[in-house]
Amino acid sequence: MSQYFNEAGSVEAVNSRMGPDVTPRLKEVMTSLVAHLHAFVKDVRLTQQEWEFAIDFLTRTGQICSEERQEFILLSDTLGVSMLVDAINNRRPPAATENTVMGPFHVAGAPAREMGARISFDGKGESCLFEGRVVDLRGNPVTGACIDVWSDNADGFYDVQQPGIQPEWNNRGVFTTGEDGRYSFVGIKPVSYPIPHDGPVGMMLDALGRGPYRPAHMHFMVMAEGFQKVVTHTFVGDDTYIARDAVFGVKQTLVAPFERVDGGETIWRSRFDFVLTPV
Amino acid sequence: MSQYFNEAGSVEAVNSRMGPDVTPRLKEVMTSLVAHLHAFVKDVRLTQQEWEFAIDFLTRTGQICSEERQEFILLSDTLGVSMLVDAINNRRPPAATENTVMGPFHVAGAPAREMGARISFDGKGESCLFEGRVVDLRGNPVTGACIDVWSDNADGFYDVQQPGIQPEWNNRGVFTTGEDGRYSFVGIKPVSYPIPHDGPVGMMLDALGRGPYRPAHMHFMVMAEGFQKVVTHTFVGDDTYIARDAVFGVKQTLVAPFERVDGGETIWRSRFDFVLTPV
Repeated sequence: MSQYFNEAGSVEAVNSRMGPDVTPRLKEVMTSLVAHLHAFVKDVRLTQQEWEFAIDFLTRTGQICSEERQEFILLSDTLGVSMLVDAINNRRPPAATENTVMGPFHVAGAPAREMGARISFDGKGESCLFEGRVVDLRGNPVTGACIDVWSDNADGFYDVQQPGIQPEWNNRGVFTTGEDGRYSFVGIKPVSYPIPHDGPVGMMLDALGRGPYRPAHMHFMVMAEGFQKVVTHTFVGDDTYIARDAVFGVKQTLVAPFERVDGGETIWRSRFDFVLTPV
Repeated sequence: MSQYFNEAGSVEAVNSRMGPDVTPRLKEVMTSLVAHLHAFVKDVRLTQQEWEFAIDFLTRTGQICSEERQEFILLSDTLGVSMLVDAINNRRPPAATENTVMGPFHVAGAPAREMGARISFDGKGESCLFEGRVVDLRGNPVTGACIDVWSDNADGFYDVQQPGIQPEWNNRGVFTTGEDGRYSFVGIKPVSYPIPHDGPVGMMLDALGRGPYRPAHMHFMVMAEGFQKVVTHTFVGDDTYIARDAVFGVKQTLVAPFERVDGGETIWRSRFDFVLTPV
């Protein structure tokens, strides 16, 4: 009788139990979740011992979470799920700038700065001029685009990770484009850094022969009236970890040039244009 | 370039990152997990908001766990995963007694009792004679089989849930078969009870239009030299919740007769034979 559990009909046993008043979307999501979860267990013939390990792993992942740490997001990141969700929800024409993960270090309310201004105030690192344009799919400049930028410092830490040590709003700023759509600011050439790896996720990365490092990147969030918000990074192409970002954030189109410039105030220059998609 | 992330190649992006020294079994399990997890996200086109809800749900599930409570096991139970893992790891010939989930209430070291002895000591509930035989696949009696039994009391609580309120080892006992393979003991007709439902799992059951109840059952663990261990329950067939066990523990072959008996010491009688599979 199908009302009772059996191995072959396990998915149906669970999914047929849903009540008549379940919202259609919850029904759709849970039906698919149960089907895939059971298919996984069947495919690998998960042992009792492995199941116990998984229960313990998930429990420890939940218990290490705090105000300052979100280990389940790290788990989602390191299994490529965060990037996948981002990709699915931000499909764009090939010419448009792609998204990547937001990451945990954005802080709302960073100071508005003049074009060309410095954003790095701790005197560390190699200075870098970031410049380019914000344009639409036809290449026309976008006026009044808001560009929110943030990066780590030369030691690999965001200011919020070192309160009282780094200056306030170090390596952060908000810029607004004029009629030419151009932006520019002086930060540092960012450096690679590890995600927190002293918990269950770090243990998993170890067991999988993977590392915790993210390749160096500058964060950008670009918003303009009538266009889709772009949340992305530009990456330093020759970074040691460029092809093994722990959270799979790198996309081919986001690897930006970082050119050494002789003379002048800055050591590096990185030019990158943001191409926005209409809403 | 396939070394970087893209939506279509998301599974490959993650799985190709594993190092050369990963153990074959871990590689097999994680490769399948990533494939199924990504397939789920793609199938339902999981939204950013739903992903955030899932992260929060998993975090709360981990944080409510304690020495006394294992919410991830409840989640596994209520999604049918625990029963599926049990089924996969305990496939048996059709004539053999089937397993079901162990549950959290078994306690090792229950008192050995004489055949026919009483196991219920709180004076509550309707007394029930449990009896039957332990046999092999040919129907021959199994001598020296150890039968460990446990059930809730008439209020729906196991003794370990009410320390100091119920007598010690209430509704528990261990019996050993003689040459006839027979067993018998006097407990109560068990009653249905809810799993803990004041946490994330209870919220999920609510949203799915499901309830937290388990139909009434007696737990049996049967062990004998040369045979596979059987961990199972017998279920009261006319229980309100027989077709909607919150943890999907009911199998057709485990629904046992509970017959009213006139006169005598006990009100009910439940006969059930355990058929063991050789190791």
